[in-house]
Amino acid sequence: MRKGQATRQRIVDRAIASASQDGIDTLTIGALAAELGMSKSGLFTHFGSKEALQIEVVDETVRRFTEEVVRPALALPPGKNQLRRMFGDWVAWSFDDTRPGGCPLAAAAFDFDGQPGDVRQRLAENIALWRQVLRNAVEAAKAVDLAATVDSDDLVLRIIGLYFAQHLYHWLLDDNGAGDAALRSFEALLAGPDTP
Amino acid sequence: MRKGQATRQRIVDRAIASASQDGIDTLTIGALAAELGMSKSGLFTHFGSKEALQIEVVDETVRRFTEEVVRPALALPPGKNQLRRMFGDWVAWSFDDTRPGGCPLAAAAFDFDGQPGDVRQRLAENIALWRQVLRNAVEAAKAVDLAATVDSDDLVLRIIGLYFAQHLYHWLLDDNGAGDAALRSFEALLAGPDTP
Repeated sequence: MRKGQATRQRIVDRAIASASQDGIDTLTIGALAAELGMSKSGLFTHFGSKEALQIEVVDETVRRFTEEVVRPALALPPGKNQLRRMFGDWVAWSFDDTRPGGCPLAAAAFDFDGQPGDVRQRLAENIALWRQVLRNAVEAAKAVDLAATVDSDDLVLRIIGLYFAQHLYHWLLDDNGAGDAALRSFEALLAGPDTP
Repeated sequence: MRKGQATRQRIVDRAIASASQDGIDTLTIGALAAELGMSKSGLFTHFGSKEALQIEVVDETVRRFTEEVVRPALALPPGKNQLRRMFGDWVAWSFDDTRPGGCPLAAAAFDFDGQPGDVRQRLAENIALWRQVLRNAVEAAKAVDLAATVDSDDLVLRIIGLYFAQHLYHWLLDDNGAGDAALRSFEALLAGPDTP
Protein backbone atom coordinates (compact mmCIF):
# COMPACT_ATOMS: atom_id res chain seq x y z
CA MET A 1 0.00 0.00 0.00
CA ARG A 2 2.72 2.46 1.00
CA LYS A 3 4.76 1.38 -2.03
CA GLY A 4 1.73 1.95 -4.23
CA GLN A 5 1.38 5.48 -2.94
CA ALA A 6 5.06 6.20 -3.51
CA THR A 7 4.78 4.95 -7.07
CA ARG A 8 1.68 6.98 -7.67
CA GLN A 9 3.50 10.05 -6.32
CA ARG A 10 6.45 9.39 -8.62
CA ILE A 11 4.08 9.15 -11.60
CA VAL A 12 2.35 12.41 -10.70
CA ASP A 13 5.65 14.25 -10.14
CA ARG A 14 6.89 13.15 -13.56
CA ALA A 15 3.54 14.02 -15.15
CA ILE A 16 3.63 17.55 -13.69
CA ALA A 17 7.18 18.13 -14.96
CA SER A 18 6.22 16.81 -18.37
CA ALA A 19 3.03 18.90 -18.48
CA SER A 20 5.06 21.93 -17.48
CA GLN A 21 7.15 21.62 -20.64
CA ASP A 22 4.82 20.12 -23.23
CA GLY A 23 1.35 20.82 -21.88
CA ILE A 24 -1.29 18.76 -20.13
CA ASP A 25 -3.03 17.98 -23.42
CA THR A 26 -0.15 15.90 -24.78
CA LEU A 27 0.17 13.79 -21.60
CA THR A 28 -0.53 10.16 -22.38
CA ILE A 29 -0.23 6.97 -20.37
CA GLY A 30 2.10 5.51 -23.00
CA ALA A 31 4.52 8.42 -23.22
CA LEU A 32 4.68 8.77 -19.46
CA ALA A 33 5.27 5.04 -18.97
CA ALA A 34 8.22 5.27 -21.39
CA GLU A 35 9.69 8.27 -19.53
CA LEU A 36 9.38 6.45 -16.20
CA GLY A 37 10.62 3.11 -17.50
CA MET A 38 7.34 1.52 -16.40
CA SER A 39 4.88 -0.66 -18.28
CA LYS A 40 1.71 0.90 -19.65
CA SER A 41 -0.33 -1.62 -17.70
CA GLY A 42 1.54 -0.60 -14.53
CA LEU A 43 0.48 2.99 -15.07
CA PHE A 44 -3.06 1.92 -15.81
CA THR A 45 -3.42 0.43 -12.33
CA HIS A 46 -2.89 3.97 -10.96
CA PHE A 47 -4.69 6.00 -13.63
CA GLY A 48 -7.37 4.30 -15.66
CA SER A 49 -7.36 6.81 -18.50
CA LYS A 50 -5.42 9.68 -20.02
CA GLU A 51 -8.08 12.05 -18.76
CA ALA A 52 -7.83 10.75 -15.18
CA LEU A 53 -4.08 11.39 -15.34
CA GLN A 54 -4.60 14.92 -16.72
CA ILE A 55 -7.12 15.71 -14.00
CA GLU A 56 -4.74 14.43 -11.31
CA VAL A 57 -2.05 16.79 -12.68
CA VAL A 58 -4.51 19.69 -12.32
CA ASP A 59 -5.63 18.63 -8.85
CA GLU A 60 -2.14 17.96 -7.49
CA THR A 61 -0.84 21.27 -8.90
CA VAL A 62 -3.78 23.06 -7.28
CA ARG A 63 -3.00 21.33 -3.95
CA ARG A 64 0.60 22.52 -4.10
CA PHE A 65 -0.49 26.02 -5.12
CA THR A 66 -2.86 26.09 -2.16
CA GLU A 67 -0.04 25.14 0.21
CA GLU A 68 2.65 27.38 -1.28
CA VAL A 69 0.66 30.47 -2.28
CA VAL A 70 -2.88 30.58 -0.91
CA ARG A 71 -2.45 29.41 2.69
CA PRO A 72 0.55 31.60 3.66
CA ALA A 73 -1.20 34.72 2.36
CA LEU A 74 -4.51 33.89 4.02
CA ALA A 75 -2.67 33.52 7.34
CA LEU A 76 -1.88 37.26 7.21
CA PRO A 77 -4.29 39.99 8.29
CA PRO A 78 -6.15 41.75 5.43
CA GLY A 79 -4.51 44.76 3.78
CA LYS A 80 -1.93 45.70 1.18
CA ASN A 81 0.69 43.45 2.77
CA GLN A 82 -1.58 40.45 2.34
CA LEU A 83 -2.08 41.36 -1.32
CA ARG A 84 1.69 41.78 -1.75
CA ARG A 85 2.28 38.34 -0.28
CA MET A 86 -0.39 36.81 -2.49
CA PHE A 87 0.97 38.27 -5.72
CA GLY A 88 4.65 37.92 -4.76
CA ASP A 89 4.27 34.23 -3.93
CA TRP A 90 2.25 33.71 -7.12
CA VAL A 91 5.04 35.20 -9.25
CA ALA A 92 7.66 33.16 -7.35
CA TRP A 93 5.51 30.07 -7.98
CA SER A 94 5.71 30.66 -11.73
CA PHE A 95 9.51 30.31 -11.58
CA ASP A 96 9.68 27.14 -9.44
CA ASP A 97 12.49 24.79 -10.46
CA THR A 98 10.35 21.67 -10.23
CA ARG A 99 8.33 22.90 -13.21
CA PRO A 100 10.87 23.37 -16.04
CA GLY A 101 8.38 25.08 -18.38
CA GLY A 102 6.42 27.06 -15.81
CA CYS A 103 3.12 26.31 -14.11
CA PRO A 104 1.27 23.75 -16.25
CA LEU A 105 -2.04 25.35 -15.32
CA ALA A 106 -1.09 28.59 -17.10
CA ALA A 107 -0.66 26.83 -20.44
CA ALA A 108 -3.64 24.56 -19.84
CA ALA A 109 -5.90 27.51 -19.05
CA PHE A 110 -5.33 28.85 -22.58
CA ASP A 111 -5.13 25.46 -24.24
CA PHE A 112 -8.27 23.79 -22.90
CA ASP A 113 -10.57 26.81 -23.13
CA GLY A 114 -11.97 25.55 -26.44
CA GLN A 115 -12.14 21.88 -25.41
CA PRO A 116 -15.28 20.99 -23.43
CA GLY A 117 -14.76 18.23 -20.89
CA ASP A 118 -13.71 17.42 -17.35
CA VAL A 119 -10.20 18.91 -17.62
CA ARG A 120 -11.52 22.26 -18.84
CA GLN A 121 -14.18 22.26 -16.12
CA ARG A 122 -11.67 21.50 -13.37
CA LEU A 123 -9.35 24.25 -14.61
CA ALA A 124 -12.19 26.77 -14.85
CA GLU A 125 -13.46 25.96 -11.34
CA ASN A 126 -10.05 26.35 -9.77
CA ILE A 127 -9.09 29.52 -11.63
CA ALA A 128 -12.48 31.08 -10.85
CA LEU A 129 -11.89 30.17 -7.19
CA TRP A 130 -8.46 31.82 -7.19
CA ARG A 131 -9.99 34.92 -8.80
CA GLN A 132 -12.55 34.98 -5.98
CA VAL A 133 -9.81 34.63 -3.32
CA LEU A 134 -8.01 37.60 -4.88
CA ARG A 135 -11.22 39.61 -5.01
CA ASN A 136 -12.03 38.85 -1.36
CA ALA A 137 -8.54 39.97 -0.34
CA VAL A 138 -8.92 43.21 -2.33
CA GLU A 139 -12.32 43.90 -0.74
CA ALA A 140 -10.93 43.21 2.74
CA ALA A 141 -7.93 45.47 2.07
CA LYS A 142 -10.29 48.33 1.19
CA ALA A 143 -11.52 48.25 4.78
CA VAL A 144 -7.91 48.58 5.99
CA ASP A 145 -5.31 50.47 3.90
CA LEU A 146 -6.30 50.19 0.22
CA ALA A 147 -8.17 53.17 -1.28
CA ALA A 148 -11.91 52.53 -0.95
CA THR A 149 -12.46 53.99 -4.43
CA VAL A 150 -10.60 51.10 -6.08
CA ASP A 151 -12.84 49.02 -8.35
CA SER A 152 -12.22 45.51 -7.01
CA ASP A 153 -13.08 43.64 -10.23
CA ASP A 154 -10.86 45.93 -12.25
CA LEU A 155 -7.94 45.54 -9.85
CA VAL A 156 -8.27 41.75 -9.95
CA LEU A 157 -8.38 41.80 -13.77
CA ARG A 158 -5.16 43.83 -13.77
CA ILE A 159 -3.44 41.59 -11.23
CA ILE A 160 -4.30 38.46 -13.19
CA GLY A 161 -3.14 40.24 -16.35
CA LEU A 162 0.21 41.15 -14.79
CA TYR A 163 0.76 37.54 -13.81
CA PHE A 164 0.16 36.15 -17.29
CA ALA A 165 2.11 38.96 -18.98
CA GLN A 166 5.20 38.27 -16.86
CA HIS A 167 4.78 34.53 -17.44
CA LEU A 168 4.81 35.18 -21.21
CA TYR A 169 7.76 37.57 -21.04
CA HIS A 170 9.78 35.17 -18.91
CA TRP A 171 9.01 31.81 -20.51
CA LEU A 172 8.51 32.71 -24.16
CA LEU A 173 10.41 35.97 -24.63
CA ASP A 174 13.32 34.98 -22.32
CA ASP A 175 12.99 38.28 -20.46
CA ASN A 176 14.61 37.64 -17.08
CA GLY A 177 13.48 40.93 -15.59
CA ALA A 178 9.78 40.21 -16.13
CA GLY A 179 9.01 39.04 -12.60
CA ASP A 180 10.56 42.15 -11.04
CA ALA A 181 8.80 44.39 -13.57
CA ALA A 182 5.47 42.81 -12.64
CA LEU A 183 6.17 43.29 -8.92
CA ARG A 184 6.97 46.99 -9.49
CA SER A 185 3.83 47.43 -11.57
CA PHE A 186 1.79 45.68 -8.88
CA GLU A 187 3.17 48.11 -6.28
CA ALA A 188 2.08 51.04 -8.47
CA LEU A 189 -1.40 49.47 -8.71
CA LEU A 190 -1.65 49.36 -4.91
CA ALA A 191 -0.46 52.96 -4.68
CA GLY A 192 -3.18 54.04 -7.19
CA PRO A 193 -6.09 54.43 -7.52
CA ASP A 194 -6.15 55.36 -11.16
CA THR A 195 -9.40 53.45 -11.58
CA PRO A 196 -12.63 55.35 -12.03
CA MET B 1 -1.65 25.95 -59.93
CA ARG B 2 -4.65 28.05 -58.95
CA LYS B 3 -6.43 24.91 -57.76
CA GLY B 4 -3.39 23.97 -55.72
CA GLN B 5 -3.43 27.34 -54.01
CA ALA B 6 -7.15 27.07 -53.24
CA THR B 7 -6.59 23.65 -51.70
CA ARG B 8 -3.67 24.90 -49.67
CA GLN B 9 -5.83 27.79 -48.44
CA ARG B 10 -8.61 25.37 -47.49
CA ILE B 11 -6.12 23.27 -45.50
CA VAL B 12 -4.74 26.30 -43.68
CA ASP B 13 -8.23 27.66 -42.86
CA ARG B 14 -9.21 24.31 -41.38
CA ALA B 15 -5.88 24.04 -39.51
CA ILE B 16 -6.38 27.49 -37.95
CA ALA B 17 -9.92 26.63 -36.81
CA SER B 18 -8.69 23.33 -35.39
CA ALA B 19 -5.71 24.98 -33.67
CA SER B 20 -8.07 27.57 -32.22
CA GLN B 21 -10.00 24.86 -30.39
CA ASP B 22 -7.43 22.18 -29.60
CA GLY B 23 -4.11 23.97 -29.86
CA ILE B 24 -1.35 24.11 -32.46
CA ASP B 25 0.60 21.34 -30.70
CA THR B 26 -2.01 18.67 -31.39
CA LEU B 27 -2.26 19.51 -35.11
CA THR B 28 -1.16 16.56 -37.20
CA ILE B 29 -1.25 15.84 -40.92
CA GLY B 30 -3.30 12.69 -40.29
CA ALA B 31 -5.99 14.27 -38.12
CA LEU B 32 -6.35 17.24 -40.44
CA ALA B 33 -6.60 15.00 -43.51
CA ALA B 34 -9.45 13.11 -41.81
CA GLU B 35 -11.26 16.36 -40.96
CA LEU B 36 -10.94 17.58 -44.56
CA GLY B 37 -11.79 14.23 -46.16
CA MET B 38 -8.42 14.28 -47.93
CA SER B 39 -5.69 11.68 -48.11
CA LYS B 40 -2.62 12.03 -45.91
CA SER B 41 -0.42 11.95 -49.00
CA GLY B 42 -2.51 14.77 -50.51
CA LEU B 43 -1.79 16.92 -47.48
CA PHE B 44 1.88 15.99 -47.57
CA THR B 45 2.24 17.55 -51.04
CA HIS B 46 1.30 20.89 -49.41
CA PHE B 47 3.01 20.51 -46.04
CA GLY B 48 5.92 18.11 -45.78
CA SER B 49 5.76 17.74 -42.01
CA LYS B 50 3.64 18.40 -38.96
CA GLU B 51 6.00 21.19 -37.98
CA ALA B 52 5.72 22.89 -41.41
CA LEU B 53 1.95 22.85 -40.99
CA GLN B 54 2.18 24.27 -37.46
CA ILE B 55 4.51 27.05 -38.63
CA GLU B 56 2.15 27.90 -41.50
CA VAL B 57 -0.68 28.26 -38.97
CA VAL B 58 1.46 30.71 -36.99
CA ASP B 59 2.54 32.63 -40.11
CA GLU B 60 -0.93 32.84 -41.65
CA THR B 61 -2.49 33.93 -38.34
CA VAL B 62 0.21 36.61 -38.03
CA ARG B 63 -0.53 37.80 -41.61
CA ARG B 64 -4.23 38.16 -40.77
CA PHE B 65 -3.43 39.88 -37.48
CA THR B 66 -1.21 42.32 -39.35
CA GLU B 67 -4.02 43.14 -41.80
CA GLU B 68 -6.84 43.31 -39.25
CA VAL B 69 -5.12 44.86 -36.24
CA VAL B 70 -1.67 46.26 -36.94
CA ARG B 71 -2.12 48.08 -40.29
CA PRO B 72 -5.36 49.97 -39.49
CA ALA B 73 -3.86 51.29 -36.24
CA LEU B 74 -0.55 52.26 -37.84
CA ALA B 75 -2.49 54.26 -40.46
CA LEU B 76 -3.63 56.62 -37.68
CA PRO B 77 -1.52 59.48 -36.33
CA PRO B 78 0.26 58.77 -33.01
CA GLY B 79 -1.59 59.47 -29.78
CA LYS B 80 -4.13 57.95 -27.41
CA ASN B 81 -6.58 57.34 -30.25
CA GLN B 82 -4.04 55.21 -32.04
CA LEU B 83 -3.47 53.21 -28.85
CA ARG B 84 -7.24 52.83 -28.40
CA ARG B 85 -7.57 51.52 -31.94
CA MET B 86 -4.67 49.11 -31.43
CA PHE B 87 -6.03 47.64 -28.21
CA GLY B 88 -9.70 47.74 -29.28
CA ASP B 89 -9.00 45.87 -32.51
CA TRP B 90 -6.81 43.38 -30.63
CA VAL B 91 -9.64 42.59 -28.19
CA ALA B 92 -12.13 42.34 -31.08
CA TRP B 93 -9.68 39.99 -32.82
CA SER B 94 -9.76 37.65 -29.83
CA PHE B 95 -13.53 37.16 -30.34
CA ASP B 96 -13.49 36.53 -34.11
CA ASP B 97 -16.03 33.92 -35.23
CA THR B 98 -13.63 32.17 -37.59
CA ARG B 99 -11.61 31.04 -34.56
CA PRO B 100 -14.06 29.06 -32.39
CA GLY B 101 -11.65 28.74 -29.46
CA GLY B 102 -9.99 32.15 -29.68
CA CYS B 103 -6.68 33.19 -31.25
CA PRO B 104 -4.51 30.07 -31.59
CA LEU B 105 -1.40 32.14 -30.91
CA ALA B 106 -2.59 32.96 -27.38
CA ALA B 107 -2.72 29.29 -26.40
CA ALA B 108 0.44 28.47 -28.33
CA ALA B 109 2.37 31.27 -26.63
CA PHE B 110 1.83 29.55 -23.27
CA ASP B 111 2.00 26.02 -24.61
CA PHE B 112 5.24 26.15 -26.61
CA ASP B 113 7.22 28.26 -24.16
CA GLY B 114 8.87 25.14 -22.75
CA GLN B 115 9.36 23.41 -26.13
CA PRO B 116 12.49 24.55 -27.99
CA GLY B 117 12.15 24.46 -31.76
CA ASP B 118 11.01 26.39 -34.82
CA VAL B 119 7.40 26.87 -33.69
CA ARG B 120 8.46 28.38 -30.38
CA GLN B 121 10.98 30.61 -32.13
CA ARG B 122 8.45 31.88 -34.66
CA LEU B 123 5.94 32.60 -31.90
CA ALA B 124 8.54 34.41 -29.79
CA GLU B 125 9.74 36.54 -32.73
CA ASN B 126 6.23 37.63 -33.66
CA ILE B 127 5.07 38.33 -30.13
CA ALA B 128 8.27 40.28 -29.39
CA LEU B 129 7.61 42.28 -32.57
CA TRP B 130 4.04 43.08 -31.50
CA ARG B 131 5.33 44.14 -28.09
CA GLN B 132 7.76 46.47 -29.88
CA VAL B 133 4.96 47.91 -32.06
CA LEU B 134 2.95 48.62 -28.90
CA ARG B 135 5.96 50.21 -27.23
CA ASN B 136 6.68 52.43 -30.24
CA ALA B 137 3.05 53.59 -30.26
CA VAL B 138 3.21 54.38 -26.53
CA GLU B 139 6.45 56.33 -26.97
CA ALA B 140 5.00 58.26 -29.92
CA ALA B 141 1.83 59.03 -27.94
CA LYS B 142 3.93 60.56 -25.15
CA ALA B 143 5.02 63.23 -27.63
CA VAL B 144 1.33 63.98 -28.34
CA ASP B 145 -1.34 63.50 -25.66
CA LEU B 146 -0.16 60.74 -23.30
CA ALA B 147 1.47 61.85 -20.03
CA ALA B 148 5.23 62.00 -20.57
CA THR B 149 5.77 60.52 -17.10
CA VAL B 150 4.27 57.17 -18.15
CA ASP B 151 6.79 54.32 -18.01
CA SER B 152 6.47 52.84 -21.51
CA ASP B 153 7.63 49.32 -20.64
CA ASP B 154 5.28 49.20 -17.67
CA LEU B 155 2.32 50.40 -19.72
CA VAL B 156 3.01 47.79 -22.39
CA LEU B 157 3.28 45.05 -19.73
CA ARG B 158 -0.13 46.11 -18.39
CA ILE B 159 -1.72 46.29 -21.84
CA ILE B 160 -0.49 42.81 -22.73
CA GLY B 161 -1.69 41.61 -19.34
CA LEU B 162 -5.17 43.05 -19.87
CA TYR B 163 -5.40 41.26 -23.20
CA PHE B 164 -4.54 37.85 -21.80
CA ALA B 165 -6.67 38.34 -18.69
CA GLN B 166 -9.77 39.13 -20.76
CA HIS B 167 -8.98 36.20 -23.06
CA LEU B 168 -8.90 33.89 -20.03
CA TYR B 169 -12.07 35.37 -18.51
CA HIS B 170 -13.94 35.08 -21.80
CA TRP B 171 -12.81 31.73 -23.14
CA LEU B 172 -12.24 29.72 -19.95
CA LEU B 173 -14.41 31.41 -17.34
CA ASP B 174 -17.32 32.14 -19.75
CA ASP B 175 -17.37 35.77 -18.60
CA ASN B 176 -19.07 37.63 -21.45
CA GLY B 177 -18.31 41.06 -20.03
CA ALA B 178 -14.54 40.54 -20.04
CA GLY B 179 -13.81 42.39 -23.28
CA ASP B 180 -15.71 45.48 -22.13
CA ALA B 181 -14.07 45.32 -18.69
CA ALA B 182 -10.64 45.25 -20.37
CA LEU B 183 -11.53 48.22 -22.58
CA ARG B 184 -12.66 50.22 -19.53
CA SER B 185 -9.50 49.31 -17.66
CA PHE B 186 -7.41 50.28 -20.68
CA GLU B 187 -9.13 53.69 -20.77
CA ALA B 188 -8.22 54.18 -17.10
CA LEU B 189 -4.60 53.27 -17.92
CA LEU B 190 -4.49 55.99 -20.60
CA ALA B 191 -6.04 58.49 -18.18
CA GLY B 192 -3.33 57.64 -15.59
CA PRO B 193 -0.47 57.94 -14.92
CA ASP B 194 -0.31 55.99 -11.73
CA THR B 195 3.11 54.68 -12.75
CA PRO B 196 6.20 55.94 -10.99
